[in-house]
Amino acid sequence: MDRLALGLSILDYAAVAVFAASGALAAARKKHDIVTFAFFAAVTGVGGGTLRDVLIDAPVFWVARPTYIVVCLGAAVAIWFAGWGRGRERLLLWVDALGGGAYTIVGALKATSLGLPPLTAVVMGVLTGTFGGVLRDILAHEPSILLKRELYVTPALVGSSLFVILFELGIGGLTASIAGIVAAFLLRAGAIVFGWALPGFPGRAPPT
Amino acid sequence: MDRLALGLSILDYAAVAVFAASGALAAARKKHDIVTFAFFAAVTGVGGGTLRDVLIDAPVFWVARPTYIVVCLGAAVAIWFAGWGRGRERLLLWVDALGGGAYTIVGALKATSLGLPPLTAVVMGVLTGTFGGVLRDILAHEPSILLKRELYVTPALVGSSLFVILFELGIGGLTASIAGIVAAFLLRAGAIVFGWALPGFPGRAPPT
Amino acid sequence: MDRLALGLSILDYAAVAVFAASGALAAARKKHDIVTFAFFAAVTGVGGGTLRDVLIDAPVFWVARPTYIVVCLGAAVAIWFAGWGRGRERLLLWVDALGGGAYTIVGALKATSLGLPPLTAVVMGVLTGTFGGVLRDILAHEPSILLKRELYVTPALVGSSLFVILFELGIGGLTASIAGIVAAFLLRAGAIVFGWALPGFPGRAPPT
Repeated sequence: MDRLALGLSILDYAAVAVFAASGALAAARKKHDIVTFAFFAAVTGVGGGTLRDVLIDAPVFWVARPTYIVVCLGAAVAIWFAGWGRGRERLLLWVDALGGGAYTIVGALKATSLGLPPLTAVVMGVLTGTFGGVLRDILAHEPSILLKRELYVTPALVGSSLFVILFELGIGGLTASIAGIVAAFLLRAGAIVFGWALPGFPGRAPPT
Repeated sequence: MDRLALGLSILDYAAVAVFAASGALAAARKKHDIVTFAFFAAVTGVGGGTLRDVLIDAPVFWVARPTYIVVCLGAAVAIWFAGWGRGRERLLLWVDALGGGAYTIVGALKATSLGLPPLTAVVMGVLTGTFGGVLRDILAHEPSILLKRELYVTPALVGSSLFVILFELGIGGLTASIAGIVAAFLLRAGAIVFGWALPGFPGRAPPT
Repeated sequence: MDRLALGLSILDYAAVAVFAASGALAAARKKHDIVTFAFFAAVTGVGGGTLRDVLIDAPVFWVARPTYIVVCLGAAVAIWFAGWGRGRERLLLWVDALGGGAYTIVGALKATSLGLPPLTAVVMGVLTGTFGGVLRDILAHEPSILLKRELYVTPALVGSSLFVILFELGIGGLTASIAGIVAAFLLRAGAIVFGWALPGFPGRAPPT
C-alpha cells in the first residue's frame, strides 16, 4: 500500500491546490484583495477534508501539518498573478475534475482505513470531494454549485461507491482507487463536455 | 430508563426521517435530481444532531451506525415518488412539529447524560432541534427559517428548558421528556394554526 | 503568565459580548423577536472560538462553562432594551475593533499553548477573530463581511502573525499579546476612520 499512499498523498496536495485555485477565482470574480483571495483559497482548499476529519473524529489533517495551508496560499498568489483567461479557466475545470475525483477517493480511503462502515466511507468520500465547493459558494454568497443541474455530487458519489465496493470485495486499494478516480473523472468530464445531467424531479413542485 | 431510551430512539429515527423529508421537499421545489434530493435529505436529517455531537465531543451519531443515512435516503426516495401535494405538505408540517420536539429532547437528554451543565443541555436541545432546518435553507440559498416571524426556535427553547428544569428537579426522565415534547409541539402547533409569534424588536431599526 | 491569562480571559469575555451585540444588532435590523436576538447573539458571540476549538480538537470553550452563553444572552437583552442609535452603533464599532483584536490573540495563544505549529496558530487567530461575523452574515442571509472591501480579515491576520512571530522569537506572552492586539486595532481603526483597504484584484475578472 506504500505506493498507493504516496500516490494518494500527491493527488491529495494536487486536489487541495486545485480547490484552492477555484476559491481564489471566486474571489477574483468580485475583485477582492489578496487577503480575501487567501481566505477563500484556504476555506475552499481544505474545507471538505476538514469536515470529514471533524466528523470521523480524526485530527484535522492540516492542523499539525500546515503545508496544506501553504499550498492554498500559493494557489491564491498564483491566481492573483496569472490572472484570468478563458483558456486558464478551462484548464482549471479539467484539473478540478481530476482533483475532485482524487480528493473523493482520499476521503473514502481515510474513512475505510479507520474501520468505519462502508456507507459511512462513501459519505465521507462525497463530503471530502464536494464540500469545499459548497463552502466557497456560501462564503461568496452565490447559489451553491449543488443547485446547478450539472453533475457535481453524482461523480463523487459514483467514484466513492465504486471504490468502497471494490475495496470491500477484496480488490487491492490501488486498483480500487484508480477505478474510483477514473469513474468520477469520466462522469464529470461528460458533464463538462456534453452537459450530462440526471433528470430533475418529475412531480409537481411545491410553491416556494 | 430503558423504555425511555427505546422510546427516544424511535422518536430519534422518526425525527431524522421527517427532517430529511423536509430537506427533500426543498430539493423538489427546485426540481433537482435524485442525488441532490439525497444530499439535501441527509444534511437536513442529520445536521442538527451532527453539530450537537461535534460540540459536545461525542462520536457523531451516524458515523459508526449509518442506518440514519439509510433513513435519510429512504425519505428522499419517498418524497421523489410520492411527489408533492397540499395535503402531504400539511401532514409533513405536523409530523415535523412532533419530530422537532422529539429531536430537541433527544439532544438535551444526550447532553444531560454526559454530565454537561443544564444551560449547555438547553442549548444542545435547541441546536439539535433547529440546525438541520437552518442548514437546509443555507444550502438551498433561501432566507433561513430563523428569519421568519413564525415561532421556530422558541418551541425548541421552551421544550428543551422545560425538560432540563424538570430533570434537574429530579422528576423522572420519561415524564420530563414527555412534558418537553408536548410543550414544544403545542407551541409549534399554535404557530402553524394561529400564526403565533413573539413581538418583534420595538426599537428603531438600524439601516441595513 | 498568570496576569496575561487573567487579562486575556477578561478580553475574551469582552470580545464574546461585543460579537454577541453585533449579532443582536443584525437581528434588530430585521425586527426579530427576542429569541432570535438570543440565537444570533450566541452564534456570533461564540462562533469563531467554537470553530477554533473543533479544529484543534480542544473541548469547546463554552460547553463545560456556559457563562459565555449567559454573556451572549445578556448582550442580546441589552441591545433589545438599549435600542439602536447612531452613537451606539459607532461605539460598538470601536469596541468591536478592540474586541476583535483581543479575540484574535486569544485564539492564536490557545493554539500556541497546545504546541501547534506557528502557521496553524496564525490561522486559528484569524478564524477566532473573524468567523463569528461570517456566521452572523450567513444566518442573516446577507453578503458576508468578507465581501466588503474594508479591511476585516487583514487586521486579524496582521495581529495574529505579529503575536506568533514575537512569541516564537521568545518575547514574553504579555508583550507579544499587547503588540498583536494594538496592531489589529490600529489597522481596523484605520479602516473605520479612513476607509483603509488593500488594492483589489487588478486582472480581468472572470464573468460570474
